Amino acid sequence: MNQSKMEKLLVVKIGGNVIDDDQKLSSFLRLFAAITEKKILVHGGGKLATQLAEKLGVEQKMIDGRRLTDAETLKIVTMVYAGFVNKNIVAGLQAFGSDAMGLTGADGGLISAHKRNHPSIDFGFVGDVDSVNSGFISSLLQLGKVLVIAPITSDLNGQLLNTNADTIAQEIAKGMSQSYEVELIYSFEKAGVLLDVHDENSVLKNINVASYAELKASNKIFAGMIPKLDNAFLAIRAGVKKVIIGKAEKLDQLVNGESGTSITND
Amino acid sequence: MNQSKMEKLLVVKIGGNVIDDDQKLSSFLRLFAAITEKKILVHGGGKLATQLAEKLGVEQKMIDGRRLTDAETLKIVTMVYAGFVNKNIVAGLQAFGSDAMGLTGADGGLISAHKRNHPSIDFGFVGDVDSVNSGFISSLLQLGKVLVIAPITSDLNGQLLNTNADTIAQEIAKGMSQSYEVELIYSFEKAGVLLDVHDENSVLKNINVASYAELKASNKIFAGMIPKLDNAFLAIRAGVKKVIIGKAEKLDQLVNGESGTSITND
Repeated sequence: MNQSKMEKLLVVKIGGNVIDDDQKLSSFLRLFAAITEKKILVHGGGKLATQLAEKLGVEQKMIDGRRLTDAETLKIVTMVYAGFVNKNIVAGLQAFGSDAMGLTGADGGLISAHKRNHPSIDFGFVGDVDSVNSGFISSLLQLGKVLVIAPITSDLNGQLLNTNADTIAQEIAKGMSQSYEVELIYSFEKAGVLLDVHDENSVLKNINVASYAELKASNKIFAGMIPKLDNAFLAIRAGVKKVIIGKAEKLDQLVNGESGTSITND
Repeated sequence: MNQSKMEKLLVVKIGGNVIDDDQKLSSFLRLFAAITEKKILVHGGGKLATQLAEKLGVEQKMIDGRRLTDAETLKIVTMVYAGFVNKNIVAGLQAFGSDAMGLTGADGGLISAHKRNHPSIDFGFVGDVDSVNSGFISSLLQLGKVLVIAPITSDLNGQLLNTNADTIAQEIAKGMSQSYEVELIYSFEKAGVLLDVHDENSVLKNINVASYAELKASNKIFAGMIPKLDNAFLAIRAGVKKVIIGKAEKLDQLVNGESGTSITND
């Protein structure tokens, strides 16, 4: 298909700190609802899952920022992500006029995944994505629905799995890029990719393959950003048109290119 | 449309006691997955919401079997019904080969509802159904999806509402009866409508408008069954072909007419 003829689709990942703050969440949802292009919102659960686990006395263990997911923790994240957070975002978007519809990766085989098989760490019921059912997603978008996706998947054999929301956003963006001109937006608490991590005004406006190589060679990129950026370039190599990283409360400016960091092929 | 040409659709309500028992639930899901007609499963949350409320120290008040739903209770039922129960049923059905997809009444405006306005009792965030988006449901069925519906609705203005699952099953059955030949099945722990409430062998095989009038006149129907039956006849008057009441573990026999009570117009 001719790339220039494809319809635009925005896949937006919303950061946990926005979900934790009712006021910030409502402002964000207002901006998201106002986007006129086809759109998908991917969320995690912020601190709510950890808070519920504490109240229920279920000890939480994290390794490298990933939650070890035993059976009780899986129950908690399923309740919080697929239940409370997902349906509150749906209701919130409806209040701003969006025809929002909440789903997990498990629903209708939207995403198929398998339990993570790690050589040394047992992550428990953590899922790694195998594939995205882009035909099903297209059908729902064509019905005019705004999709809100919680990061629970299934192995299609009866097991629910806790799956990283950044990864889900990326896999959906990649999967949909055959049929749409996809922009993937990671919206969080930072203004974008910073040259100086302590200076919110040092946002790099654009990064492409060539400038990224230079930035890495001269150690100008904060180490913590490198996995995110490597992933962004993987998405672009897989057909995603643009990856944008920036502040959730400026979502409108991230969409129109006035804020954040744009990552493109060239 | 010619009634005889319409495709069949089964709307099945699953009782709370089945959800509370992993073994019973799995047997039920195996039978449900084996149904070859188009189908929708409506569920509540059994005792799980009450158990979670107890653990979290949120006091639960019931009036006439209806849960008074304050903000904390709404959060709990949203987590349990839309999160844990809904997604576990979806995963369970997938294990038996169903292309199951979980939704609440809030998703995509599937059901619109309003906060109950009662002259003397404040039920809190309890919803009464205004309408069913039958076109949206038809679109999902035409995609080949098996719908699993949790009893949470929204007022489309930002407020989630806890809504009776029996009512949702009935409203969906009525709403879909313009486009499908709908059978509404209430599956629970009893074998059907009993002539003698203590004798599981006293199941009335058929009830129609005329025989129901006779049974009521001669006080042969257990008082507790009368609201359920009155509702069944309302559904039939609104276009539902048949209402079947019977044991969840005999779902296959309820579907083929070998078990339970069939309620029809004539």
